Amino acid sequence: MKTPMRVAITGAAGQICYSLLFRIASGDMLGKDQPVILQLLEITPAMKVLEAVAMELNDCAFPLLKDIITTDDPQVAFKDANVALMVGAKPRGPGMERADLLTDNGRIFSVLGKTINDVADKNIRICVVGNPANTNAYILGKNAPDLNQRNITALTRLDHNRAIFQIADKTGKDMADVKKMTIWGNHSTTQVPDIAHANINGDSAAAMVDAEWANNEFMPTVAKRGAAVIAARGSSSAASAANGIIDHVHDWVLGTNEGDWVSMAVPSDGSYGIEEGLIYSFPVVCKDGDYEIVQGVECSDFIKGKMKESEAELQDERNTCSDLF
Amino acid sequence: MKTPMRVAITGAAGQICYSLLFRIASGDMLGKDQPVILQLLEITPAMKVLEAVAMELNDCAFPLLKDIITTDDPQVAFKDANVALMVGAKPRGPGMERADLLTDNGRIFSVLGKTINDVADKNIRICVVGNPANTNAYILGKNAPDLNQRNITALTRLDHNRAIFQIADKTGKDMADVKKMTIWGNHSTTQVPDIAHANINGDSAAAMVDAEWANNEFMPTVAKRGAAVIAARGSSSAASAANGIIDHVHDWVLGTNEGDWVSMAVPSDGSYGIEEGLIYSFPVVCKDGDYEIVQGVECSDFIKGKMKESEAELQDERNTCSDLF
Repeated sequence: MKTPMRVAITGAAGQICYSLLFRIASGDMLGKDQPVILQLLEITPAMKVLEAVAMELNDCAFPLLKDIITTDDPQVAFKDANVALMVGAKPRGPGMERADLLTDNGRIFSVLGKTINDVADKNIRICVVGNPANTNAYILGKNAPDLNQRNITALTRLDHNRAIFQIADKTGKDMADVKKMTIWGNHSTTQVPDIAHANINGDSAAAMVDAEWANNEFMPTVAKRGAAVIAARGSSSAASAANGIIDHVHDWVLGTNEGDWVSMAVPSDGSYGIEEGLIYSFPVVCKDGDYEIVQGVECSDFIKGKMKESEAELQDERNTCSDLF
Repeated sequence: MKTPMRVAITGAAGQICYSLLFRIASGDMLGKDQPVILQLLEITPAMKVLEAVAMELNDCAFPLLKDIITTDDPQVAFKDANVALMVGAKPRGPGMERADLLTDNGRIFSVLGKTINDVADKNIRICVVGNPANTNAYILGKNAPDLNQRNITALTRLDHNRAIFQIADKTGKDMADVKKMTIWGNHSTTQVPDIAHANINGDSAAAMVDAEWANNEFMPTVAKRGAAVIAARGSSSAASAANGIIDHVHDWVLGTNEGDWVSMAVPSDGSYGIEEGLIYSFPVVCKDGDYEIVQGVECSDFIKGKMKESEAELQDERNTCSDLF
């Protein structure tokens, strides 16, 4: 029996986590042979709901679930954690300016970063989901200097999966056969869903659709899919976001499929001319529990321009929060 | 690649299904190599919500999910279905008598039974979840004479899993090591959670607790756990119910673990003196896609009395609905 992995999760009583926790406990994220301990963090007023979630987790008798810790104390939640899923964030309220959203969340993530730095496993793998996810991850990292900075990431896998569906739906092909989709940049509407390198059973996906659709329909449809789900559902994506988190961590820990890559927002190492340190979505291949940014992907001037716009947005977000690191 | 299995699901826009559908599509229920087609049924007013669920299912790019059919027409939902998960049912409203609940749901399940009989695979595996689950399953079966009657079952796996947690929690042992728990009878408060044959790493679970706890605390706690979750959560069990469904069908199709059994409500063959035909929860072992009721389990007079009470309740429920078959 493997040693249990400690998975710390914020916003644990929320809707995304209600779809997420049970899948983690079933082994979908870390493997069917990997025991887990769930370390669940919530704000104090949500603790009663969190206790009810814990009751239901217990009522599943998951063989891999070795313990559940529920707490409103980050020091407890992140203690010795091997994985952190940062789902909770302050949502944008009525009349709230974008800069306020950035700095309010920045403050939260700077405090959480310091705590994680103090109490978690130094090689902890972090996936930030709460928006603005990339910049929250950036601030977290700057406040957690002792952690392995490579392991501070943000979620663009939901966008990646949404893009695969759009391509399969347009071409009438099977989603399972769509490979090498790429999301570049920020997890925001400036994200760059790039079909150019995607293939379907080895054939160019871009060649199966017209450029007009790829640039003027596909890209905005993927980038604005979150809003479309809200309009249809009356609330934000939850189960599909949870699935993106599962896929992100699963592939990071257990490896990407041969002949494929996935999209992860990771600290830029300067690849593709993106400012070093920004948390930016790239195509990555995962192996042996680590990721590598795929090198040598040729981009059109159109895509390069969009990539720069998304980089500029991330620089702007970072600068808005510059007092936090 | 295996042929996709068609899984028909009722109440598909509801809370249990929001926890259930994504796990089925991920391969948790039928195996990681088994493609599936989801055939989702809802009442007409819920179709908009159901479409939003389908959007999110698509946004997961599940490799095993080959198609999603959303419909308010049972003829479409059950067409050629290999598995049916009957999650939807009319809930008990304010001032509604128990007999009204029984006959209202009986009418629904008699109509659905006729449709399944007409359009589904004749060997379809059915798991009824909507309450009163056992009697709904009974009525369904009586209205579907051409189906393999053995395959018309109801869910008591949630109760089974809840019982495992209570035993592990009381003894301080690992849930994964608790084997051969049994739920006898109706999925109602007359159910009989029976610790007598359960073992923990081969040692008698009953010997680790006192009889007072087993009879006067354990049994009512398991039987009334649904109400406790509602009190804590403000709404019914959803993710844990979904997990019970996953476990029920998974083990039925893929087999129970060596040295263990599970609880399923299945048509009685007269075992343990229970009236033949009643949908009654027994300990079962599953192998090669079929189940067998475990024979020769010795029960105390106390348990036998409780088993008879639960049988009498099922007979009474059946008699209330006798005009429906």
